[in-house]
Amino acid sequence: MEIIIAKHAGFCFGVRRAVNIAERAVEDIKNGPIYTDGPIIHNPQEVNRLKERGVIPGTFEEFKEGSTVIIRSHGIPPDRERALKNKGLNIIDATCPYVKAVHEAVTKLVKEGYFVVIIGEKNHPEVIGAYGYLKDAGGEGIIVETLEDIELVKDKEKVGVVSQTTQHEEFFKKIVGEIAIWIKELKIINTICNATSERQEGVYELAPKVDVMIVVGGKNSGNTRRLYNIAKSLNERSYHIETADELEEEWFKGANKVGITAGASTPDWIIESVRKRIKEICEH
Amino acid sequence: MEIIIAKHAGFCFGVRRAVNIAERAVEDIKNGPIYTDGPIIHNPQEVNRLKERGVIPGTFEEFKEGSTVIIRSHGIPPDRERALKNKGLNIIDATCPYVKAVHEAVTKLVKEGYFVVIIGEKNHPEVIGAYGYLKDAGGEGIIVETLEDIELVKDKEKVGVVSQTTQHEEFFKKIVGEIAIWIKELKIINTICNATSERQEGVYELAPKVDVMIVVGGKNSGNTRRLYNIAKSLNERSYHIETADELEEEWFKGANKVGITAGASTPDWIIESVRKRIKEICEH
Repeated sequence: MEIIIAKHAGFCFGVRRAVNIAERAVEDIKNGPIYTDGPIIHNPQEVNRLKERGVIPGTFEEFKEGSTVIIRSHGIPPDRERALKNKGLNIIDATCPYVKAVHEAVTKLVKEGYFVVIIGEKNHPEVIGAYGYLKDAGGEGIIVETLEDIELVKDKEKVGVVSQTTQHEEFFKKIVGEIAIWIKELKIINTICNATSERQEGVYELAPKVDVMIVVGGKNSGNTRRLYNIAKSLNERSYHIETADELEEEWFKGANKVGITAGASTPDWIIESVRKRIKEICEH
Repeated sequence: MEIIIAKHAGFCFGVRRAVNIAERAVEDIKNGPIYTDGPIIHNPQEVNRLKERGVIPGTFEEFKEGSTVIIRSHGIPPDRERALKNKGLNIIDATCPYVKAVHEAVTKLVKEGYFVVIIGEKNHPEVIGAYGYLKDAGGEGIIVETLEDIELVKDKEKVGVVSQTTQHEEFFKKIVGEIAIWIKELKIINTICNATSERQEGVYELAPKVDVMIVVGGKNSGNTRRLYNIAKSLNERSYHIETADELEEEWFKGANKVGITAGASTPDWIIESVRKRIKEICEH
C-alpha cells in the first residue's frame, strides 16, 4: 500500500507568514490580549492551536482600547481597518501580500475608470475585503461567483477584472472568455496566486493515478473546497476532511494507492496525522 | 421543399460601403484608370463585376502617377499607404471603419506599453495591415492563429489583445482565457465586428434545423470559411461554394429543408442565383 502526498500540499506563503506573525506577537507582546479580527486563517484546528497560545479570534465589540488586533491573512475592508485604528487598537497586519495586490489592482482599475469584476465567492472574507477597496475608491462593480452573475456586465463599456487569489483557473478562464466577447475594452489583472495553481496542478496530476484521494483542510476554506471539487471530478473516490478523525475505514477497501493533498491553510501536523491514520487503517 | 436563408447572410456594412465607394469612383473620375490595391473585397465574382465597370485590381508597379487607387476594405499597412502617396497617386480609402478601429486599438496598446497579440490569420490582408500598424507604432507583438502560437506570450508581463474583425467568437474566447491565466496584466480590446457575430449566430441557429446547409462566399474569404466550419460542425451535409455552378444534384437527395448563408463579402445577386439553382435541382 502506497500513500502519496501531492506536490505543494498544505501551507502557502501567505498562511505560513500569518501564523508566524501571530506566534511572534505572542512572544513580543506581554501587555494585554492579542486578538485576530476573525479567524486568522481558514483552518479551525490551527486557529485553536494558536488560541491556546493566546491568539484569540474576536469581534469588534470585544477589542478593548490598547489591545492588539492582528488583521487576518484574508485582509479586511479599508473602512474596517480605519474603524479599528479609530478605536485606539495596536494593529498588526497579517494580510497576505498577494491579497494586498488584489486591493491595489481593484483601486487601480477604479481610478482608470473601469467597472470592476471580482471573480470570487461573495461571502468569502478575502472577497468582502477586496470589494471594500472597490467601494472605498468610489468605484462600481460586482462579484462574479457563477456564470449567471456576468449578465450584469453585459451593458458595460470598460470592464476591469481581478480574481480571488484562490480562484479555480478553469472558472477564471471561462468567465474571462465570456466577458471578453461582450465588452469593448477589458482589462484583466490576474491575481490568482501561484500557490493556488500549484496545488490545483498537484491534484490534476495525482487524483487520476490513485484509488482514493483525500483532501485535507478547513470546510470554510475556499481553496480547499476547490481542490476537493477538482479531485472529485477526476476520481469518484475523493473525500474532504478536516482531521484524521473523519477518515472512514470503508473508503479504503481494496485501495492500493492513496493520494493526499491539503489546502493552503492546512498545517503540516494535520497532514501528518492524516497520513499516519490512513497507514493504520490500510495495514489493519 | 423549403429553402431558408439564414439571418444576416451576405454583405456587411464595410463591404457594401467599399463597393459603393468603388461605384461612385467610376461615376466621378473620368481621367485615367481606377485601381484597387489588391481585391477590394474577398469575392472574386463581385471583383470581376466591378472590373467590368472599370475598377481594376492592380499591383504597386502597375499604378501610374496621377491614377486613382482605392484602398481595399481590409485595409493596408501604413508604410504601404505612405508609399502609395509618395508615388503621387490619388488615394480613396475604402478601409472598413471597423478595421480602422483595429488599427487604432493596436496603436493605443503599443503606446500603453503592451506586447500586442492579434488573434487572426497570419496571411489575411486585414491582419497584415493591423500588424503593420503595430510595427509602425514601434511595438512588439505576434499574430495568434492557433492555440500553439500563444506559447510565445508566456513570458510577457503586459499583454494587449485585439482580434481580426471576422474572428470566430469561440476561438477568441478560448485564446483570451488561456492567455489570462499566464499574464499579470492583460488588456483586451474586442474588435470582432457585430456583422461577424450576427452571421455566425445565424448559422448556429439554422444549420442544425436543415437537411443540407449551403455556405456561399469567396474561397479566399476568412469569414466565409469560418461560417462553413461552424456549419460543418453542426451539420455533416454542409458545403462551401462560390457560385451556383458548383452545386451538385446529389447533395440534395432526400432533402426537405435546405439552408443558405453567405459570407460578409457575398453579393445579393450571387445568393439569389444559388437559391434559384437549388430550387431547380430539388424540383427536378
